[in-house]
Amino acid sequence: MRILITGGAGFLGGKLSAELMARGSIAGADGGPKAVERLTLVDVATASGPRDPRVTSLAGDLCDAALLDRAFEGGVDGVFHLAAVVSGEAEANFDLGWRVNVDATRALLERCRALPSPPRFAFASSVAVFGGALPDRVPDDQVLTPQSSYGAQKAVGEMLVHDFARKGFVDGRSLRLPTVTVRPGKPNKAASSFASGIVREPLAGVEAPCPVDAATRMWLLSPRAAIANLVAGYEAPASAFPVSHAVNVPGISVTVGEMIDALRRVAGDEVARRVAFRHDPAIDRIVRTWPRDFDAHAGRALGMRSDADFVSIVRQYIEHDMPK
Amino acid sequence: MRILITGGAGFLGGKLSAELMARGSIAGADGGPKAVERLTLVDVATASGPRDPRVTSLAGDLCDAALLDRAFEGGVDGVFHLAAVVSGEAEANFDLGWRVNVDATRALLERCRALPSPPRFAFASSVAVFGGALPDRVPDDQVLTPQSSYGAQKAVGEMLVHDFARKGFVDGRSLRLPTVTVRPGKPNKAASSFASGIVREPLAGVEAPCPVDAATRMWLLSPRAAIANLVAGYEAPASAFPVSHAVNVPGISVTVGEMIDALRRVAGDEVARRVAFRHDPAIDRIVRTWPRDFDAHAGRALGMRSDADFVSIVRQYIEHDMPK
Repeated sequence: MRILITGGAGFLGGKLSAELMARGSIAGADGGPKAVERLTLVDVATASGPRDPRVTSLAGDLCDAALLDRAFEGGVDGVFHLAAVVSGEAEANFDLGWRVNVDATRALLERCRALPSPPRFAFASSVAVFGGALPDRVPDDQVLTPQSSYGAQKAVGEMLVHDFARKGFVDGRSLRLPTVTVRPGKPNKAASSFASGIVREPLAGVEAPCPVDAATRMWLLSPRAAIANLVAGYEAPASAFPVSHAVNVPGISVTVGEMIDALRRVAGDEVARRVAFRHDPAIDRIVRTWPRDFDAHAGRALGMRSDADFVSIVRQYIEHDMPK
Repeated sequence: MRILITGGAGFLGGKLSAELMARGSIAGADGGPKAVERLTLVDVATASGPRDPRVTSLAGDLCDAALLDRAFEGGVDGVFHLAAVVSGEAEANFDLGWRVNVDATRALLERCRALPSPPRFAFASSVAVFGGALPDRVPDDQVLTPQSSYGAQKAVGEMLVHDFARKGFVDGRSLRLPTVTVRPGKPNKAASSFASGIVREPLAGVEAPCPVDAATRMWLLSPRAAIANLVAGYEAPASAFPVSHAVNVPGISVTVGEMIDALRRVAGDEVARRVAFRHDPAIDRIVRTWPRDFDAHAGRALGMRSDADFVSIVRQYIEHDMPK
């Protein structure tokens, strides 16, 4: 199998690469496991990625035809399309968001359509496709009314994947990821960046601003569960997906206050006290439009799983991703 | 008011032009009636349109920047975006459908965004955005799962209008039209073309093939009611729209058998017997995915109205649109 990962230099892209190299195989066109012979990582920066002769890293703009030529050279059997302009940046830079989140997705799908046989295409969508007046628990058939450009762009990406899949150009599936936390590194321009920051920074001895109040409820998934669910969504047979070709990836519904309580239980009161509530209306406005809880039956039926609780998510970060 | 109508040389575009010229005014930015000073019709062919010094016709490709330059010369206060590649053609020609139904819509929205103040933008969407396993009566908050490229493209157009409207770049609204019948002229490549043909051709003394069976239920609107509802949707205040900026335009739910019965009541048995059932699986497959009935509360709340029954739709055709 020749697998292409966009956003391959990112946090999830790196974890997914390592996972695929460690597994050594992934579902082929017939559903059975096939050896991963080649892994091509594409991103704006070169991926540091796993050092493995099977891995190639390409840096450039996904809208650049020459980069796509190189990415598809020698054929592709499957794509994980993770690359995106994040929510806060897409809201601030309207043109960049539509170009990367929509035009690049379409260009990728067009390349897939030109392949001799339709590849699997797993599109990392987001719960940000939902918004407005939502039920407390969002059902699988909730209408998409995004309240951010990021969400609108992901919704359009889903519709592209859906129509290309319906036409048989790709074996497409859109996987709507919850907010993935705890991410290591620096804060980014995602409106959800604080959901990692309020764990990561206090554990590093640094004060962490929290732009929303303690009662704010979020739909969360650990990085490890995100990778497992991306692979499960990639490997599930096309026939197992709803007619939309999209599923809500399972997560856990946790308030910011409960997140801080979990941090306190794991790391103590001194650490937890480093979270400083400083209201940011721009971030609060975006986060408030996101769903807080889901039924996610369809995702579970595909074999996707959520974390046990937020304590285990904090422990996973300390064990696997926190700088030692 | 300087009004731009795309698809201005089409059947609905022509009727809308005539209606706006006859009314002489349309809602301005503040909602009050303002004189229509200029009407620009854009289409692939030159509109024969109303002969009126206020009317300009432009022919060309909506994706052509030079054509859009001319269309927006001197400013635009409002847009009716009716131009589209129809359903059967969009299914047969995937690239053309995405280019005209999506790329041209986005190019138009970008031009509107560049205007000194955000214009009203009424996008003619379609019930083809729905599909799959639908309830007998589709509620206003039904999730969009189109089963045709035309429907997927209209769904993406809606999402563009929604995000441009949310950002304040246009005062946007998507109006999901039922199948509009009875259309005069020749059959076209819309999968719904037969819904006009089975009335129009028998009345002209010609046999009309019907590609779906008599029990097939459709959601229908007469041309006159379509124009009235497009104007109502344009004139309604932005605050009256749902968070999606989209509404289902009211129609009537009628079976093909009931349509033929209505034709018989109006024009007699000899005419009605000219409908010949000849199953066409390609058309049947598309039509079967369309909704058959709607609640359409949101559309009615905007002042939109449906026809009384199909008999009145047949009579409207005979009186206003049938060649004498």
